[in-house]
Amino acid sequence: MKALEERIRKDGKVYPGNILKVDSFLNHQIDIALMDEIAEELYDIYKEEGVTRILTIEASGIAIASSVARVFKVPMVFAKKAKSKNIGGNVYTSRVTSFTYKKDYDITLSKSFLGAEDKVLVVDDFLATGSAMKGLLKICKYAGAKVVGVGICIEKGFQPGGKEIRDMGYDVTSLAIIEEMTSDGRIIFK
Amino acid sequence: MKALEERIRKDGKVYPGNILKVDSFLNHQIDIALMDEIAEELYDIYKEEGVTRILTIEASGIAIASSVARVFKVPMVFAKKAKSKNIGGNVYTSRVTSFTYKKDYDITLSKSFLGAEDKVLVVDDFLATGSAMKGLLKICKYAGAKVVGVGICIEKGFQPGGKEIRDMGYDVTSLAIIEEMTSDGRIIFK
Repeated sequence: MKALEERIRKDGKVYPGNILKVDSFLNHQIDIALMDEIAEELYDIYKEEGVTRILTIEASGIAIASSVARVFKVPMVFAKKAKSKNIGGNVYTSRVTSFTYKKDYDITLSKSFLGAEDKVLVVDDFLATGSAMKGLLKICKYAGAKVVGVGICIEKGFQPGGKEIRDMGYDVTSLAIIEEMTSDGRIIFK
Repeated sequence: MKALEERIRKDGKVYPGNILKVDSFLNHQIDIALMDEIAEELYDIYKEEGVTRILTIEASGIAIASSVARVFKVPMVFAKKAKSKNIGGNVYTSRVTSFTYKKDYDITLSKSFLGAEDKVLVVDDFLATGSAMKGLLKICKYAGAKVVGVGICIEKGFQPGGKEIRDMGYDVTSLAIIEEMTSDGRIIFK
């Protein structure tokens, strides 16, 4: 997606350790017009699939998922990052490893909001190692819901998540795929 | 706001300890059309104030703030709940007490995204003890930003937050104010 790649080039900041900061428009301060463009792009691809739910994970997926749910005219639902002690019996639970924070945590979703009748488009801001996304996909599996696609804003193509999730058979749409971030701060897209 | 009160009556669930669950439409599964109605309501009230930023706190404020930012055509920014160890020098920080989780935590906001030139509408899903909102207002104060108003979906009128924040001089708009939740599960609005 041209507009997203241009925005990443313009406002993204590259830090050592392959860290890309896009917090001026994607995951701290949010440019809603850009979210709506992203949503239209995903709608074009998945509009014939009978999507009934947009699923994401808190916190930075929520703004994107809101825009996507608006164009699909379906509810948005987000998985919560919870400590194990807060987990009751009426939720789907899945374990995620955070590489940013170097710890494991559980994500949970109420069983009321996802079921076998659902056709789900799963969206998130980033796809890198794929741990959070695999957690969301596991929750869809527990629910018996059909995943019609995975919509990602920025995929770090040099990390294994995207390939692994495609190899699992999922249809992954990444609107910007970064092939390389150079030591002098340039971003090369696939 | 009639539509919101009706929705709370229809789908809200009252639990012992004055707990109101609205997770089927407001803070776990999200009804985007309702968020957009809420946004229009707040726009009607604050449209003449020259709002430059919509501020909220992760996670459940984000969907509402996204809709509000869309109608105001300004960026949305959300404060993050961070452990102290993750806090660098380039952020505003404020301490919040969570009564749900019975612990204190810091909220942070990058200094890049809020400054003395900003006119801010602060929004959130709930106002009860007011601890999170006071944290957000403190961050606005640190930034030197002007708070034009506080927009809340559901205020628990029987808890002190709303009165305290109004007494501090802020213009608080709560779209539904709950006066009482009875032991047989009825919800009485102000």
